[in-house]
Amino acid sequence: MSVLVRFGVSLEQDLLGRFDKLIGKQGYTTRSEALRDLIRRQLVKKEWEEDQEVAGAITFVYDHHQRNLTSRLTNLQHDHQEIIISTQHVHLDHHNCLEIVAVKGKASSVQQLANALHSVKGVRHGTLSMSSTGKSIG
Amino acid sequence: MSVLVRFGVSLEQDLLGRFDKLIGKQGYTTRSEALRDLIRRQLVKKEWEEDQEVAGAITFVYDHHQRNLTSRLTNLQHDHQEIIISTQHVHLDHHNCLEIVAVKGKASSVQQLANALHSVKGVRHGTLSMSSTGKSIG
Amino acid sequence: MSVLVRFGVSLEQDLLGRFDKLIGKQGYTTRSEALRDLIRRQLVKKEWEEDQEVAGAITFVYDHHQRNLTSRLTNLQHDHQEIIISTQHVHLDHHNCLEIVAVKGKASSVQQLANALHSVKGVRHGTLSMSSTGKSIG
Amino acid sequence: MSVLVRFGVSLEQDLLGRFDKLIGKQGYTTRSEALRDLIRRQLVKKEWEEDQEVAGAITFVYDHHQRNLTSRLTNLQHDHQEIIISTQHVHLDHHNCLEIVAVKGKASSVQQLANALHSVKGVRHGTLSMSSTGKSIG
Repeated sequence: MSVLVRFGVSLEQDLLGRFDKLIGKQGYTTRSEALRDLIRRQLVKKEWEEDQEVAGAITFVYDHHQRNLTSRLTNLQHDHQEIIISTQHVHLDHHNCLEIVAVKGKASSVQQLANALHSVKGVRHGTLSMSSTGKSIG
Repeated sequence: MSVLVRFGVSLEQDLLGRFDKLIGKQGYTTRSEALRDLIRRQLVKKEWEEDQEVAGAITFVYDHHQRNLTSRLTNLQHDHQEIIISTQHVHLDHHNCLEIVAVKGKASSVQQLANALHSVKGVRHGTLSMSSTGKSIG
Repeated sequence: MSVLVRFGVSLEQDLLGRFDKLIGKQGYTTRSEALRDLIRRQLVKKEWEEDQEVAGAITFVYDHHQRNLTSRLTNLQHDHQEIIISTQHVHLDHHNCLEIVAVKGKASSVQQLANALHSVKGVRHGTLSMSSTGKSIG
Repeated sequence: MSVLVRFGVSLEQDLLGRFDKLIGKQGYTTRSEALRDLIRRQLVKKEWEEDQEVAGAITFVYDHHQRNLTSRLTNLQHDHQEIIISTQHVHLDHHNCLEIVAVKGKASSVQQLANALHSVKGVRHGTLSMSSTGKSIG
């Protein structure tokens, strides 16, 4: 558990007033918690830019009726076992599936796997959630 | 299954050459497939902008040792059952958890739930993957 | 001139250490200044989301040799005089021009003008810089 | 002037219908023009990722009454003359200025200058428009 440190910040009164209003709407109860989150978001952005170890989620939408598609996507995931933690499969309707792959590894490897999955013929849409292993934002 | 239509596109020769090189590197085998993906990405962006029904994934990282945090996050998810499909929980290390919530619903409701989860005290990082139910990008 | 207020923030020691390292690299000399910027960026994002009065820059790249293109782009700008402050024209090479339009107005009007300019046939690339009138981030 | 090439694309009928509707709203008159723009946007993204020569605009908002600020910003720009083409200065109100710097150079140098300008104490908001010299998207 990390030690809490307290330090002072100088801010224009008007700016602080607007910030308080904004974080109130967002559901924060203290300024420290809101600032902590702004800081963490910056640090996680850096983790990805500097190709450190990261965690995240790769999503993709596809029609499982398409011939061989499911097996091709599964094979591709097996080839990258070392960065895949687990996969969640959601049946959106009779045709469409949403698959969400939880990943942990070097940022560039995760990005590569996302590109590979998203460019498979038949995959209709893909996203990559750039999150963190939590180690450097504790 | 949607009918395939074939139509002609006019493009500057140089531009086409560069595009072919790019999509080759990305792993696409045909131009049609690469263009299809560019088009779909545009359409999904619109779905979110126009507050239509969407699907996606909300991620967040937290330390499960923090008092009451797990139960607060679970309660919050129960309050939004109608848009949550399932949740995947990953143990990143002794402290850190990555939770990935598969969601389907109105874009604004999904956004609201993401904000609510991300602003809970103790949640260290959050992302929202803006994907699609697949219906309008078939 | 806004009054400066000083308040205390509690932060995990490790997190603070990483933040200090990051902002050092970015060239900030005090934490207050770095936090002020993170806060302002959040507020400006809100200004655009809530369709308030904003300022910004619309850029587009085009080949001025293309028949009628220059006059079409100029006409379009004249039709939106009320939100255009001034336009900077850069000759990138014998063919390519970069035009940068300084704008101030309702976020949705600025977005609309950007879309209109970017979709003119012959315009090769366009961006929209979402900045602020400065009034609400003082 | 680049030679126009015509090639065929296969697309699901429903998807094409939705695309036509979307680009109609955006103001495009032909599919080729809309696809050309989608392709160019991808190529320009790559130019920045691969640190090629790019063009763009750096914006920043500041209060010119702040002591020494204007001269510090001017000095900084002079130190990077080789990538700055010209600067547009807009008086937003009695206090606030919007400065828009047209730039051309290596992507990493442009990014660096943007960071430097944005982290000067007193600069309230900054953006970086990632555009192109137009050479590789002709």
